[in-house]
Amino acid sequence: MLRLFNFLTELVYFSQMIRVVLLGAGNVAQHLYTALLNQKHITVVQCYNRKKKTLSTTQNKDEVTNIIHSIKDADIYILAVSDDAIAELSAQLRIKNKLVVHTSGSVPIQAIAAIHKKGVFYPLQTFSATTPIDFAKLPICIEAENHHDLTRLRDLATSLTKNVYEVTSEQRNFLHVSAVFVNNFTNYLFSIGHEICALNDLPFEMLHPLITETAQKITKMNPTQAQTGPAVRKDTKTIARHLQTLSNPEHIEIYQMLTKAIQTKYGKKL
Amino acid sequence: MLRLFNFLTELVYFSQMIRVVLLGAGNVAQHLYTALLNQKHITVVQCYNRKKKTLSTTQNKDEVTNIIHSIKDADIYILAVSDDAIAELSAQLRIKNKLVVHTSGSVPIQAIAAIHKKGVFYPLQTFSATTPIDFAKLPICIEAENHHDLTRLRDLATSLTKNVYEVTSEQRNFLHVSAVFVNNFTNYLFSIGHEICALNDLPFEMLHPLITETAQKITKMNPTQAQTGPAVRKDTKTIARHLQTLSNPEHIEIYQMLTKAIQTKYGKKL
Repeated sequence: MLRLFNFLTELVYFSQMIRVVLLGAGNVAQHLYTALLNQKHITVVQCYNRKKKTLSTTQNKDEVTNIIHSIKDADIYILAVSDDAIAELSAQLRIKNKLVVHTSGSVPIQAIAAIHKKGVFYPLQTFSATTPIDFAKLPICIEAENHHDLTRLRDLATSLTKNVYEVTSEQRNFLHVSAVFVNNFTNYLFSIGHEICALNDLPFEMLHPLITETAQKITKMNPTQAQTGPAVRKDTKTIARHLQTLSNPEHIEIYQMLTKAIQTKYGKKL
Repeated sequence: MLRLFNFLTELVYFSQMIRVVLLGAGNVAQHLYTALLNQKHITVVQCYNRKKKTLSTTQNKDEVTNIIHSIKDADIYILAVSDDAIAELSAQLRIKNKLVVHTSGSVPIQAIAAIHKKGVFYPLQTFSATTPIDFAKLPICIEAENHHDLTRLRDLATSLTKNVYEVTSEQRNFLHVSAVFVNNFTNYLFSIGHEICALNDLPFEMLHPLITETAQKITKMNPTQAQTGPAVRKDTKTIARHLQTLSNPEHIEIYQMLTKAIQTKYGKKL
C-alpha cells in the first residue's frame, strides 16, 4: 500500500513539468537558460528578446521570438531584463492571470504589472558573459503573493539549487546593497591593488593567494573577528608610511576613510 | 663524466642543510615553524621568544629559549616578530656576520642592526591562529644585500613554495599597501555586508558564493574589466534607493565615496 502511494506520489511529481518562458538576452538570461535546459522537469518553451538572439550556441532560432504578442502559454514567465525594463515589459505581456517574475535584486515585486500574478526569482550572484556559473551553489531568493505561486517558484528554484530563500522585497533591497559592498566595492579595491602593483613592476598574481584567502576566511569566521591590518592594530607608524607611499589622491582618501571607519568600529579614533 | 658531475652536484646540494633559528611566537612564527619542520634540507635548530613558548604542540621545550645570549649557531636567523620589535631585537642578537632576516611587509631591510648581514623573507599572506596555511601556494618576497645571501634565501624560500619573488624594500612597501586594500579593507566591506544582513534577518551565508566568485573572477580577469554594479552602470535610480536603504552614516559615507571613485575611474562623475 505504502509502495503504491510512493509510486503515485512520484508519478504526480514527475508529471508536474514546469513550462517556462524566458524574456531577456543579457548575462542572467543566458546563464539561466543554460541552467534550466539541464533540468528534467523544466521545459523552456520559448525565449523572447528584441533582437531575436539565441541564448546559447545550441539553441534553435525557432525557439526565440521578438514579437511580444506571439508569446506562448507557460506556467512561469521570467523577466531576466534590466531593472528599468521590468515594469514596461511586464505591462506589454498580453497574458492574464499568469505567474510573471523578475530576476532583479533591487526592484520591488510590485513593479510587475497588476494584470499578472507577481513574483521574484533572484539568483544572488555576479554574472559575466565568459565565466560559467555553478547554479548548485547559488542562493536563489524567491517571493510571491500567495502560497501556491511560492510553491511553484520553490519547485523551480530547488531544481537548480539547494539554497532557496524566501525573501521579501524589503529584505532583498538590503541584500542587494550588501552585495554592492561585498562584490562591486570589493572588486574596486582589487583594482586599486592592481593599479599600485602595475605602477611598481609587481605582478598582480602575487596578491591572488591573499585575495582568495581573504574571501575563504569569512566562510569560516565572522568578518568582524577576521579583521587584521594596521588600522585595527592601531599601528599609526605603518598607516603614516602607507599614506606617504600612496600618490593617487583618490586612493589616499579611500585609505583614510576606511582606516577611520575600522578604528571607529574597533574603538579608537584616528 | 656528466653523470658523475650531476651526482656530485646533487651531493653538494643535499649536503647544504640550511640551519635556521626562528625568533618570535606569533602567528607568522608558528605557521613558519610548522612549514619549515616538514622540509628535508632545513633544520630549525632553535626557537627564541620571551615567554619560552613552544611553537607547536609537538615541539620539545628544550628547542626553545628565552635567553637571547644563548642563541645557537645557524645559517639564517628569522625575526618573525612585530614590526616595532625588529630593530631592537636584531641589535640584541650577539652574533656577527650572520644572515638575519625579518618577515615584515612594511619594514625596510635597513631596520636590521648594522652588525648583521641583512635580509627580508616576507610571506605575503594573512596569518591567523586557527586557519592552516598552504605554503606551496604562497608568494614569498626575498631581499638581501648581496648575491650569496640572496641565493641562500632563495634556497630557503623555494623549499616552501614555487612563488619566490625578489622584491626591493620600496616595492615591498607598495605591495604591503596593496595588501591592505585587497585584504584588510575588503574584509571590512565584508563586515558591513554581515552587519546589514544581521539587522535584516538574512543569513550572511547567502553572500558566501558571491564573495567567493568575486575573488575567483580576478584570478582570471583584470579587476578593472571585472567591475560591475550600479556605480559603473551609472544606474542613478538604484544608487539613490541604496542610499535611502542604508541607515549607518559611516556606511552611507563609504558607499558614496566608493561610488564616486568608481564613476570617476569609468568616466562619469556623480
